[in-house]
Amino acid sequence: MSLLIVGTTALDSIKTPYSENPRLLGGSASFAAVAASAFTRPHLVGVVGKDFPARYINLYRRHEIDLSGLQRAPGQTFHWSGEYEVNMNHRRTLDTVLGVLEHFSPVLTPAHTRLPYVLLANIAPAVQSRVLDQMRRPKFVMADTMDLWLNIALPDLLSLLRRVDALVLNDGEARQLAGQDNLINALPCLHRLGPRYVIIKKGEHGSILSGPDGLFLAPAYPLKNLVDPTGAGDSFAGALMGYLASQGGAVKAHLRDALLHGSAAASFCCEGFGLRRLAAAGHAGVAQRVRELRKLTAV
Amino acid sequence: MSLLIVGTTALDSIKTPYSENPRLLGGSASFAAVAASAFTRPHLVGVVGKDFPARYINLYRRHEIDLSGLQRAPGQTFHWSGEYEVNMNHRRTLDTVLGVLEHFSPVLTPAHTRLPYVLLANIAPAVQSRVLDQMRRPKFVMADTMDLWLNIALPDLLSLLRRVDALVLNDGEARQLAGQDNLINALPCLHRLGPRYVIIKKGEHGSILSGPDGLFLAPAYPLKNLVDPTGAGDSFAGALMGYLASQGGAVKAHLRDALLHGSAAASFCCEGFGLRRLAAAGHAGVAQRVRELRKLTAV
Repeated sequence: MSLLIVGTTALDSIKTPYSENPRLLGGSASFAAVAASAFTRPHLVGVVGKDFPARYINLYRRHEIDLSGLQRAPGQTFHWSGEYEVNMNHRRTLDTVLGVLEHFSPVLTPAHTRLPYVLLANIAPAVQSRVLDQMRRPKFVMADTMDLWLNIALPDLLSLLRRVDALVLNDGEARQLAGQDNLINALPCLHRLGPRYVIIKKGEHGSILSGPDGLFLAPAYPLKNLVDPTGAGDSFAGALMGYLASQGGAVKAHLRDALLHGSAAASFCCEGFGLRRLAAAGHAGVAQRVRELRKLTAV
Repeated sequence: MSLLIVGTTALDSIKTPYSENPRLLGGSASFAAVAASAFTRPHLVGVVGKDFPARYINLYRRHEIDLSGLQRAPGQTFHWSGEYEVNMNHRRTLDTVLGVLEHFSPVLTPAHTRLPYVLLANIAPAVQSRVLDQMRRPKFVMADTMDLWLNIALPDLLSLLRRVDALVLNDGEARQLAGQDNLINALPCLHRLGPRYVIIKKGEHGSILSGPDGLFLAPAYPLKNLVDPTGAGDSFAGALMGYLASQGGAVKAHLRDALLHGSAAASFCCEGFGLRRLAAAGHAGVAQRVRELRKLTAV
């Protein structure tokens, strides 16, 4: 069963202490769709400008990502420039050019409105809601978000959260949204906002799933070589939803395993700039790391 | 089979934003011995001064801790005063009075020298070595340490590490000792210093075991109510070794499970000031949380 993914499609220019990488393929929908493509056919909804390189369209196509929902608008593609510190734990934004993203309003094809799995990858919550407005009866909807939307579009985000099955966010965002310093205490506050499932990403420390069956602690894959963490959270969400969509049946039966698939995909993402390493990992690569992750926590 | 524990026996005065708690029972050997007592009979080797309260001797006795190795010396008991910040992640030392610890030189009884399991809880590495010098052929020796010894007694520590089976230390100490920012890369460096097993404690993020069977990632018990983390690492090490000693047989068969027992004991430690909560948990309390920890990571 296939998966609708809405989010940003971007060009990322990323500086680290060791190198500069201009105009990489980036954006939440790009990372999520490539990660999901190891398991299911992703249908990407997004917008690019006239400057979007043909080689990135080819990359999407090689991953059998359906591009019928990818708008091409006059103007510049969304462009993010950022810089990482030595230990990769802190990044700062050098420049953001919204470009065609500023007036992006997704219009789904009739086929898209009937897809059972929906990933509202990180983008303005008003855009996420607009996608949800057009869906018929999706089986499982997960929303990702970021601190920016907590700061500048909180009412939109709160209104979205009442309509999704699952929310995925990082630890700092969870603390901020719940107003709780302790993550375990933050969880009930987040559930009260709407989502039956809440997934908190903790980077190298793994992730926490909270839902009707209680808590699950998923490990992060132990990485020796952290090159560029940009898109790790998007890749996590994409592989998680791609795996769920590939399994069908009751979501709760596969959700724990789905988090391990998310961890594995995120680890590949971190090992290369942009999508380079993740795009080469494929189903076999992710499945191998999922097996390793299971062994790493087996008593 | 029983367990020798050498370490500090102290009085701790602990300030948090919410309360002051003067002259609690503390010290690495106290936390470790009480945690281990849920599983085996600990034999405590340490020193106290004339001011050491009788009620703390009674607490040791209630936990059936053998005190034949607890010296009583003229002078003050080692006293540590510290203060925690609101989020409990940072503490600062307000005052340290070494007292009788300054000239402490452990002398083991003949029975102690034949014990199979040895926990060198956190204390000066020269003292840890002096204990090891007196042991006959222990089956499994684990050493704990702290940043202080890395800074002021590194040669002593390095000489000790060549003689132990396992080293337990926290993430910051692991980075410092290995000279590696990435913990996964730090592990081979730490093994090269001697220990076949290395256990890195990451507080609320769990712990990593590295050994001949590869890596194991142990979760921390999810805590809603963090009252006082003092002694959590000592409790972790104590329960881990107490459980190992109770199992007998090949250490490697029980080591992963032993880490979960450490996590469970550490979680009780954090829920009350000093030893209050841990001392009341007992075997049943720890075993219950170990069962919960297993469920939290089961896919």
